Amino acid sequence: MMPDLIRQAAQRLHGSPAGFLRETPLLKLPGAAFGLDCDEVWLKLEQLQTGGSFKARGMLNRLMANPIPGSGVIVASGGNAGIATAAAARALGVRCEVYVPTVSSQAKRDRLAALGAQVVVTGAAYADALQACLARQQETGALLTHAYDQPEVVAGAGTLAMEIEAQGGLPGSVLVSVGGGGLIAGIASWFGQRARVVALEPELAPTLYRAREAGEPVDVAVSGIAADSLGAKRIGAIAWEVTQQHVKDALLLPDAAIRAAQLWLWNEFKLAVEPAAALGLAALQTGAYAPRPDEKVCLVICGANLDPATLAH
Amino acid sequence: MMPDLIRQAAQRLHGSPAGFLRETPLLKLPGAAFGLDCDEVWLKLEQLQTGGSFKARGMLNRLMANPIPGSGVIVASGGNAGIATAAAARALGVRCEVYVPTVSSQAKRDRLAALGAQVVVTGAAYADALQACLARQQETGALLTHAYDQPEVVAGAGTLAMEIEAQGGLPGSVLVSVGGGGLIAGIASWFGQRARVVALEPELAPTLYRAREAGEPVDVAVSGIAADSLGAKRIGAIAWEVTQQHVKDALLLPDAAIRAAQLWLWNEFKLAVEPAAALGLAALQTGAYAPRPDEKVCLVICGANLDPATLAH
Repeated sequence: MMPDLIRQAAQRLHGSPAGFLRETPLLKLPGAAFGLDCDEVWLKLEQLQTGGSFKARGMLNRLMANPIPGSGVIVASGGNAGIATAAAARALGVRCEVYVPTVSSQAKRDRLAALGAQVVVTGAAYADALQACLARQQETGALLTHAYDQPEVVAGAGTLAMEIEAQGGLPGSVLVSVGGGGLIAGIASWFGQRARVVALEPELAPTLYRAREAGEPVDVAVSGIAADSLGAKRIGAIAWEVTQQHVKDALLLPDAAIRAAQLWLWNEFKLAVEPAAALGLAALQTGAYAPRPDEKVCLVICGANLDPATLAH
Repeated sequence: MMPDLIRQAAQRLHGSPAGFLRETPLLKLPGAAFGLDCDEVWLKLEQLQTGGSFKARGMLNRLMANPIPGSGVIVASGGNAGIATAAAARALGVRCEVYVPTVSSQAKRDRLAALGAQVVVTGAAYADALQACLARQQETGALLTHAYDQPEVVAGAGTLAMEIEAQGGLPGSVLVSVGGGGLIAGIASWFGQRARVVALEPELAPTLYRAREAGEPVDVAVSGIAADSLGAKRIGAIAWEVTQQHVKDALLLPDAAIRAAQLWLWNEFKLAVEPAAALGLAALQTGAYAPRPDEKVCLVICGANLDPATLAH
């Protein structure tokens, strides 16, 4: 994954339907605003992206980079990837089928249907829905999108890093939450060794951490507060390769610290974000990641698909 | 209220304790992102300001522009003005007393206490708490802050307009919610005739609208969805003067439209805002304010002191 692919993606996305993708704000604050010793903390407010997460970038890039057959696009996901695929398909005016397991909530199915997707509920677990989705894809020839392990999806996520640099210059470090690894693969591909990219995972969803222990991607059990969006069972092949090359630190955080950071972002900054988006702040608040005094640290606030009632006391 | 007072306020606030005031993001979007015909819609995300509203600017300016006696500062408010005064006092390391009526919620009192304020609960209604506050101020000589009708408070609010122009240039129009009028007085003072400043009020809290009917500020009954933050009973004297000079349009909006816009901002943009912050979008969505096709419209997202559970379906 080269910076050139990311530049191409940015150019392609620039031609997307007006008003679909957003240049999300970069909020620069002194470390003191967080009670921290470092020079600056930057918040990249990507939860304000269309569909409520960074995934819109990658999914739209996947759709715009490939010919889309009459059968449209297809994806297996009840989460941010499904929402982003459905939203991108609607923006381009193409058909979209989304496969979700029977355990998925009615709220998520309603959200997908409201975006114009045809929602197919099948199988007890995500893996079963995926299998049915792949069989259907063979039958219809629809364009398949994957939540994190496709080059166009990773390059699309990389445009987020390119945008950070264009808005704010080069940060000293970028703290990124990891599930399947699509986001960190894009960000680390962009920055390479020019900024320190730090991988953060919940203790209860350690795909990259365990892969490093094993020396290769392995299946892990996932649970806990952020499993909804960081619940991939295995780090993606692209993310594995890119992080091995560019990412030194892979840190684990306990759910309690993630929850505390999520509530802090609401109470002190009125940012309503999902748990996965709070790992960067949790790493700073717990000291799991300790920036230098002159460091500018960028936190990627990656999504806000949550029930707002969970922020009430 | 001259632009010069606003420039002075900006300079003064620039010297405030590091990390206290924030330069809040200006999110620029094509009108198409809202399904509107106009060129651009700008969202000034001032709900991300310290204390969750624009009030921090005016309160800090009031405190920094005056000598503060040993008895500290004093205010009667259970809402955004009380929170902003308490936060500003804490940042400057001075004492703060906040008078609230017995009808105020425990959650608000806790919030004020957490900011280090001494909370005095007295009187059945806001007017009674205010009377007790004024009597106490006579006794202690503490510096009184007023929610909207002091020149330093209005000039502080005006720095928000100065910041919009510095970030994005001159908008065609700026849509501003009005309660006591401190915010619109600051914004209209800054822009003068250089941008069209539009006053928006809930039908159930029409302080400026009724004042215009009467030809002078009059007491009005206030209720409805936004009464919590736009619940002043009468337009401030400063706001009356400034709006008579610079603001042509004073529009009323029904609560249902305000609520719909509030939910839209959450569902489509993941912005959790209080009802008072949704009037601008409500005016666009209902057509109460119809921008020209080439117009750049700026919405001031003024606060986010709300129970997030009210955003859940």
